[in-house]
Amino acid sequence: MRAPAIILVNPQMGENIGAAARVMGNFGLADLRLVAPRDGWPNPQAEAMAVGSPVLESARVFETVAEATADLSRVYATTARPRGMEKRVLTGRAAIAEARGALAAGEGTGILFGAERQGLENDAVAGADAILTLPVDPAFKSLNLAQAVAVVAYEWASGDPVPDAFTEMAPPAPRIEIDRLFEHFESELDRAGFFHPPDKTPLMINNLRSALIRARFTEQEARTFRGAIKALAIGRGKARIVRED
Amino acid sequence: MRAPAIILVNPQMGENIGAAARVMGNFGLADLRLVAPRDGWPNPQAEAMAVGSPVLESARVFETVAEATADLSRVYATTARPRGMEKRVLTGRAAIAEARGALAAGEGTGILFGAERQGLENDAVAGADAILTLPVDPAFKSLNLAQAVAVVAYEWASGDPVPDAFTEMAPPAPRIEIDRLFEHFESELDRAGFFHPPDKTPLMINNLRSALIRARFTEQEARTFRGAIKALAIGRGKARIVRED
Repeated sequence: MRAPAIILVNPQMGENIGAAARVMGNFGLADLRLVAPRDGWPNPQAEAMAVGSPVLESARVFETVAEATADLSRVYATTARPRGMEKRVLTGRAAIAEARGALAAGEGTGILFGAERQGLENDAVAGADAILTLPVDPAFKSLNLAQAVAVVAYEWASGDPVPDAFTEMAPPAPRIEIDRLFEHFESELDRAGFFHPPDKTPLMINNLRSALIRARFTEQEARTFRGAIKALAIGRGKARIVRED
Repeated sequence: MRAPAIILVNPQMGENIGAAARVMGNFGLADLRLVAPRDGWPNPQAEAMAVGSPVLESARVFETVAEATADLSRVYATTARPRGMEKRVLTGRAAIAEARGALAAGEGTGILFGAERQGLENDAVAGADAILTLPVDPAFKSLNLAQAVAVVAYEWASGDPVPDAFTEMAPPAPRIEIDRLFEHFESELDRAGFFHPPDKTPLMINNLRSALIRARFTEQEARTFRGAIKALAIGRGKARIVRED
């Protein structure tokens, strides 16, 4: 992979998808991914606005953010709203500089953009490695979706690489391995009665994921932690067997 | 004057004028000037796309580029096409950096954008102090007018720090809390028979610690993970009650 994937989560207007594909083509980005676009796919409005951008033709559609990011090992969540999460917050410039280094080291990298108006759901932000935020005026911060893609794509085409520092460690695992680790951890915690009261479960899961994602586990580490979770859960063994009877 | 004027020369589509006004508002630019917009002024399509941007209301209309730039002392002409002129050519980033200095020194500064498709006439470029060009892919360089304004406006707003609303993350826990978490985790793993063969135990512990330390847990997070380990190891709520039966 040579450049970051642009991932539009639940985009509503085909016009914005098309305009995003156009500006991606202008600035050398090729990998457009759509998560459950509201009006289905393909979309005639998107085609009209893309004015022949090759990016639109090769766009891929996914059902969930997890599927759209499964092959990536570094994900940024674009948001203008603070989420109260323990997560790094980068300017567009800093995020793209970092992504450039990561890509050079072979890490698949993607940038999430939420739906018009609503933006990204908290769980999508929680699962990201860092927040990318643009320097919008707080008094008028409603940035059009395709404009947000434009400035990120422009950043990609501008500026200089930030070298090294990424090449020393083994690369982080693809996101699908991390998601499997999370799901394994959470299902064992659930079985052990960790999540209570039930209405707090989503928040507890987001907090766990936000904390763990920062470790950027390699594939080997993800396997090791799954082994550790399994050992602890099976060590509890009898309890589970009795419960399953 | 605190920020550059954005001057749209013969803009054709009200939608692009409105989108430009919107993104100018997003990124802190206020001075929009229109030279002979094709469909007259005001323009309902522009209003629809501006979604209430205060920039649109204060936009001014001029007959000619000369009139629109009369009060300025530094003008950049945005173009993707070389014009064979003996004129400085700057990236968006360099032009905005230079403009920032000029504005700080009290020079009125403006940036010209040509019409959709045609771009700027040669005489408008010739009359400018320098060319501003964006790093578009030569194979797909048709950049939407409002997108071009977006990236220039974004350049203007960049260099500012991450907005304050994104509060700093809580600091990492003191190392003693992390060490307690590690010891707790490792003693439960040991009890569950995770560490084998025994001579590999120190290496396995080091690998676990190396991975987890990168997450830089806060105190709250360290407590949460200790709770999770405890839950996995001994169960909680129903699981434990069943086990005690």
